[in-house]
Amino acid sequence: MVNWKNLDTLEAYGKLLQLKDSVVLKEEMAGENGAQRVAKYSVPMAAGLSYNYAAKAVNDEVLGVLSELASEAQLTEKYEALYNGEVINTGEKRHVLHQLCRGQLGEDVIADGVNKREFYAGQQQKVAEFAKRVHSGEITNAAGEKFTTVVQIGIGGSDLGPRAVYLALENWAKTNGELRMEAKFISNVDPDDAAAVLRETDIPHALFIVVSKSGTTLETLTNESFVRNALKDAGVDPSKHMLAVTSQTSPMASSTDYLAAFFMDDYIGGRYSVSSCVGGAVLSLAFGPDVFARFLNGAAEEDRLAKETDITKNAALLDALIGVYERNVLEYQMTTVLPYSQALSRFPAHLQQLDMESNGKSVNRFGEPVDYVTGPVIFGEPGTNGQHSFYQLLHQGKNIIPIQFIGFKNSQIGLDMDIQGSTSQQKLCANVVAQIMAFACGKDDENPNKNFDGGRPCSIIIGEQLTPEALGALLAHFENKVMFQGFIWNINSFDQEGVQLGKILSKRVLAHDTDGALKAFADLMNI
Amino acid sequence: MVNWKNLDTLEAYGKLLQLKDSVVLKEEMAGENGAQRVAKYSVPMAAGLSYNYAAKAVNDEVLGVLSELASEAQLTEKYEALYNGEVINTGEKRHVLHQLCRGQLGEDVIADGVNKREFYAGQQQKVAEFAKRVHSGEITNAAGEKFTTVVQIGIGGSDLGPRAVYLALENWAKTNGELRMEAKFISNVDPDDAAAVLRETDIPHALFIVVSKSGTTLETLTNESFVRNALKDAGVDPSKHMLAVTSQTSPMASSTDYLAAFFMDDYIGGRYSVSSCVGGAVLSLAFGPDVFARFLNGAAEEDRLAKETDITKNAALLDALIGVYERNVLEYQMTTVLPYSQALSRFPAHLQQLDMESNGKSVNRFGEPVDYVTGPVIFGEPGTNGQHSFYQLLHQGKNIIPIQFIGFKNSQIGLDMDIQGSTSQQKLCANVVAQIMAFACGKDDENPNKNFDGGRPCSIIIGEQLTPEALGALLAHFENKVMFQGFIWNINSFDQEGVQLGKILSKRVLAHDTDGALKAFADLMNI
Repeated sequence: MVNWKNLDTLEAYGKLLQLKDSVVLKEEMAGENGAQRVAKYSVPMAAGLSYNYAAKAVNDEVLGVLSELASEAQLTEKYEALYNGEVINTGEKRHVLHQLCRGQLGEDVIADGVNKREFYAGQQQKVAEFAKRVHSGEITNAAGEKFTTVVQIGIGGSDLGPRAVYLALENWAKTNGELRMEAKFISNVDPDDAAAVLRETDIPHALFIVVSKSGTTLETLTNESFVRNALKDAGVDPSKHMLAVTSQTSPMASSTDYLAAFFMDDYIGGRYSVSSCVGGAVLSLAFGPDVFARFLNGAAEEDRLAKETDITKNAALLDALIGVYERNVLEYQMTTVLPYSQALSRFPAHLQQLDMESNGKSVNRFGEPVDYVTGPVIFGEPGTNGQHSFYQLLHQGKNIIPIQFIGFKNSQIGLDMDIQGSTSQQKLCANVVAQIMAFACGKDDENPNKNFDGGRPCSIIIGEQLTPEALGALLAHFENKVMFQGFIWNINSFDQEGVQLGKILSKRVLAHDTDGALKAFADLMNI
Repeated sequence: MVNWKNLDTLEAYGKLLQLKDSVVLKEEMAGENGAQRVAKYSVPMAAGLSYNYAAKAVNDEVLGVLSELASEAQLTEKYEALYNGEVINTGEKRHVLHQLCRGQLGEDVIADGVNKREFYAGQQQKVAEFAKRVHSGEITNAAGEKFTTVVQIGIGGSDLGPRAVYLALENWAKTNGELRMEAKFISNVDPDDAAAVLRETDIPHALFIVVSKSGTTLETLTNESFVRNALKDAGVDPSKHMLAVTSQTSPMASSTDYLAAFFMDDYIGGRYSVSSCVGGAVLSLAFGPDVFARFLNGAAEEDRLAKETDITKNAALLDALIGVYERNVLEYQMTTVLPYSQALSRFPAHLQQLDMESNGKSVNRFGEPVDYVTGPVIFGEPGTNGQHSFYQLLHQGKNIIPIQFIGFKNSQIGLDMDIQGSTSQQKLCANVVAQIMAFACGKDDENPNKNFDGGRPCSIIIGEQLTPEALGALLAHFENKVMFQGFIWNINSFDQEGVQLGKILSKRVLAHDTDGALKAFADLMNI
């Protein structure tokens, strides 16, 4: 049995607090010692990735206490409890089973009388068979023509994760002849979102996937109606163009309005649902089920590595622990994610949801307020673009913001050329390593305006190329990091009570059931 | 003459520090008092916009001291000095003249022997005439066919601002028959960025704009060569397809490699350059010069309103002052920008650069370190999407993050439908006002997991519709806000020394002139 204790009751946390400012990063990274750190402070990950933390403000002493913290907080034991089916989502009294979509990590998990691994694998199989029939031309539109486009209608986790993954693999798929259908996404209740996407869509050759676990998400149902009308206007039968991804108990599950329905369940939260058929349907249609399976394999391999108890061999665990050191001991409020890969342009937005919605909490898993800070704010944009933009503040601003770089040795498309003695890919890689050192070590200058204090902690995940496997591993790494941090903070990373109040109030506004400032604001907006 | 003093030497700042936590937002916004605040705490802006700060943690007492601060720091006088041509960019010894692209606010500004208003207006005229000749088919490709696409090659300010504006007006333009050419953007040195854009571009019918003030920006020149090769491969003469936007002294200015060249100068920083021909060329080609002129008119009108000395009538000034109160007195480190408009999807990324690159500084305008915090971190995504994502942390996280909402009463495309008794646009508007109240007032609940503390300060800019004028006003509002904040912090908002060190180190990496950790990292990335 594991014990769930608040962070500030742990002995190792007390020790860690004593180590505030014990590491002078700039000095650690200087000279030969710096080179040795780069070699030593590296953890192999799945799919050929590695996590390098040489430029983090840690040393062997800090790592020793972090290791004690990992043991005392029983982090890998809690992970084991999670994947073996313990009810980790205490608030909603649910299992947490997104890893089970990707592979079997421990015991069979039986819930609602069903073996859940079989259920998830079965849905994935259903999706794969459906996708193959679409690709082969067995399933067509009424005119017998192939579908060429797939449009995902969803919001939050049904949008950000699948969209980030699609964009991350789109060029890889085109280059490798794996792009089966173009994918588009409608999410915002802003009517211009659906209208703009539909304007650019060849409706008679499009399949639309409506994604809503409950079958009651207002934005999604609104956009579904919008699309349904557009299909009718285009003279096609919506029920032959629309698919449902929902739970078996939702009103959408048995509706005849859909060509097919694929199922998820309550044990996979929206922000963790890329690996379920929420991501699986759109990605299998876009890239083919084999590519989606490769993505899942990369994630599954990373999940297995996260079982390792030695923190220096478990990238997700170590990343989580260092993040807690930065958040609770060094008192940094944010982390920025900077992928040196244009394909990962929306990956930071996915991580923003994953992390902030999971760990932006003020109560522990028993619903009691905690006295320490929890999840940081996450933001980010691709480098090198950011270098010409907000990096100014990261380098010379008054607050320190830890940085998570991601870089690949090779591009996806492979088209490149030598300009001024180096290829674009070499320039990209040179920039990311230069930035790590600029942030970590800074540069002394007599002119304070040209002075760089350094001491900005950085880590980097390095890969050979952004392949389906590497992307799966990357996704699982961050999911597992967030999970471990939730364990450390003793919070429930799998509910989201903070999104409820706005929903309730907006319904009141639409029902004109308001007074005071809310009515005054509603009047200002002419509602 | 104006006096440039550090914030912590001002009497009003001392008074302001005494007012920390003097306002309980939740109580201020309750009942009839809340409704009165909504009516009273509103400032008209240009193009029918208004800035409402009812849900900010201020009251008349705080506003009184902010007004004293504005006077003591001579904020509007400093603005006057700026637009009359004083050398405000002290580090680089330059005028700051982006407002002059949009209109004449004060005296003639003569620099380098030239009337700068005439220069900027002249370049805008040149761009307009060129665009009209392209649109009319007078300027065509070698085969005599019309150009249909324009591709901007630039990075940082040459990319983010123009891209955000293009996306913001694309649907408006299509709906109103004003889309002349599709625009695309290449920015990242990641070779996949250029390769992916080119793969989707009809090269024989595309014009490419190379934007680099110095003519030496490595990323941009690399991408230019990349594109030039692609043009040759497509069998077209690059010099008939490429335009330059650069300074008159750059090597690009008189090159015969370009079909035409349009000029900017050193008095307009990259992040302030949307109003110059950096934005003007691509936007005039995409939307026609009349639409671009309407955008500039909205900005110019907002610039004029920023001259007002009464802080309750000057939205940019007031927004700046409240931001400083939040940053320096309430000690918040971030601000999030949440537009309830899918068209503004990249506007937060532009503001992120604008604000963080301008005010993410640690030295004052004389190059001396300052002892107070300066610019905040800016991040944001469109609502309602964010509601299903990172809002969890904003509502229930341990740190308070001030919020800047933007909303419009009407959509751009105008296609909408009534579902469950309301249109999508009504739902969108209901959501934004509901969120303001949820953040400001929260909700007490016996279950701490469902409790919302409130006290999260919000402002909102409300408009009728996102038109070219409204977008111009919005852009100028934030530029002027950032300028006023720079004045308050006594920093130079117009240089960017923080981006230099990375450039130097990346050159060393490419030249294999490295040792220690930098060499070790370079080896890891195979450079």
